[in-house]
Amino acid sequence: MRIALDAMGGDYAPAPNIDGAITALQADPSIEIALVGDVPQLERELSERGFSDPRLQLKASDGWIMMDEKPTEALRQKPNCSLAVCWQMMSSREADAVVSAGHTGAVVAAGLRTRLFLKGVKRPGIAVTLPTLSGRTVLMDVGANPAARPEHLFHYGLMADIYAKEVLGIEKPRVGLINIGSEDGKGTDLVRETHDLLVKSCLKERYLGNIEGRGVYQGEADVLICEGFVGNVVLKVSEGIADMLLKTVSRHVVGSLQSERETATKAFKEVGKQFAYNESGGAPLLGIDGVCIICHGSSDSRAIHNALLVTRKFASKGINEQISERLALYPEL
Amino acid sequence: MRIALDAMGGDYAPAPNIDGAITALQADPSIEIALVGDVPQLERELSERGFSDPRLQLKASDGWIMMDEKPTEALRQKPNCSLAVCWQMMSSREADAVVSAGHTGAVVAAGLRTRLFLKGVKRPGIAVTLPTLSGRTVLMDVGANPAARPEHLFHYGLMADIYAKEVLGIEKPRVGLINIGSEDGKGTDLVRETHDLLVKSCLKERYLGNIEGRGVYQGEADVLICEGFVGNVVLKVSEGIADMLLKTVSRHVVGSLQSERETATKAFKEVGKQFAYNESGGAPLLGIDGVCIICHGSSDSRAIHNALLVTRKFASKGINEQISERLALYPEL
Repeated sequence: MRIALDAMGGDYAPAPNIDGAITALQADPSIEIALVGDVPQLERELSERGFSDPRLQLKASDGWIMMDEKPTEALRQKPNCSLAVCWQMMSSREADAVVSAGHTGAVVAAGLRTRLFLKGVKRPGIAVTLPTLSGRTVLMDVGANPAARPEHLFHYGLMADIYAKEVLGIEKPRVGLINIGSEDGKGTDLVRETHDLLVKSCLKERYLGNIEGRGVYQGEADVLICEGFVGNVVLKVSEGIADMLLKTVSRHVVGSLQSERETATKAFKEVGKQFAYNESGGAPLLGIDGVCIICHGSSDSRAIHNALLVTRKFASKGINEQISERLALYPEL
Repeated sequence: MRIALDAMGGDYAPAPNIDGAITALQADPSIEIALVGDVPQLERELSERGFSDPRLQLKASDGWIMMDEKPTEALRQKPNCSLAVCWQMMSSREADAVVSAGHTGAVVAAGLRTRLFLKGVKRPGIAVTLPTLSGRTVLMDVGANPAARPEHLFHYGLMADIYAKEVLGIEKPRVGLINIGSEDGKGTDLVRETHDLLVKSCLKERYLGNIEGRGVYQGEADVLICEGFVGNVVLKVSEGIADMLLKTVSRHVVGSLQSERETATKAFKEVGKQFAYNESGGAPLLGIDGVCIICHGSSDSRAIHNALLVTRKFASKGINEQISERLALYPEL
């Protein structure tokens, strides 16, 4: 399996991307990686590390997209930037997968332009894994498709369910629909129509119906479906409140102590990491004919390493084959 | 000013409602309160407390709505339940305000049925006050209007701005629109059209444009506008993640300590209260010709007390008069 890794994507690129690639190659002999980016710079970084392996190749691109650029404009100005070249490689089957910690909006926009969709998929979506009180839950979509239609959300349920089973190892995921009340008939036409599709689908026995916002982190479901606008806001609000809470709480609690301030500070740092993205292995853009894993912008080498290994797992579990089979059950949508 | 207080609404009703009413009457000589509920029970509770005051009257209602009931069905079955009688009193001008810690969906549904709207208002919305890293921010709407139109969101901006100024005391509130990216043109038609209305409105100099989810708790704006579906999910996700984080973090941090466990546990409890709803004084349903303050279901007597005093402030600051004047500037919407 050959993975195109956006070497220039992410707040700290390319160092953690290179380090993550090296350890992933060491951990999994079945993968090859193409580091896509500024070749002279990448050569320098590799020679500093004294690393060379025929399974690690370099692929030239022209520029990269900064985190504060506007995706559409940036892709027009830099059509051969590192993340765009990754997608070109997957389009031409020069690569089987794309991994990027670059500008999420740009990774998605470049990907959607390739129209490299699985049969039956109209709108790919991003599935993130969130920590909960009782384990982990998959939330889809978090922004690839801001204004979804019921059939898109229904597809997200079908796809995220397979992902939760194969990658998170949840045998029979419980699937929920994010809504503003738990009773039937609540919410917008979009969620009501999605609900109607889910109750008579192959997921019906594991479909819990509406789940309110409070249930997300309480672990009320293993898979939660929502449109991209809502999912994106949920994800970013979560980051913001976790940051605020940890700052406020640690200041207050550590400040109340005398002799054990250092121990408490250390414990706060450790537990803060549980809510970081580094361990999750990135978020797949599901519905793509290929594999695309999007990493958090602040990814360190461990996050990149995990994303590369998840990419391999994604392919070896036949997730796309399972998605295609399942979508074929609903040819009318 | 006469306030109809839903004595039976809330997880611990009627005790905290009665206690909050008593202290509010003592704190503010200008208010009168009608306790709406089961009169024999309320009489018993009051006589146990040895309290009587001509400014505290009792008003009979028939039943109340439980937190897990479906609003529409429950209101049909119990048309004279405590929260419905509160609204009837405001409709007939027997009361100037409604305060309830009962089922939010039912309070809103009963209120919207009265059609007691300010001139120009098509859809009232709920404005909640959230704690942020730098102070407080008003988020509107959090669920009264799940599927809003651009003119509704525009009205929410106009109304929440006045509320932030008069009740939170923010001289020139910075107004933001919740979106999934900060650049112009992001998001759905709804937010793009709302943006177009805001940039040429009387708020234009204080309008910040799009704010992403992360900015909510970072305090990037003083007023944040969104449709009810999104706001409701944000509010409930926030409650859920705060609960999960505080549980997980306190377990981990307290567990790492030896001699100062008790001090740390106490500090966690204290700081947890900062994120509780008791201090905020409830959330107004803005756009009503009258005053409606919705309290959190788990309100204690202090929360009810604060809500009653906010009700008074709301009226004395002439918020509704200001809303009417401002909406009249846009007769075409």
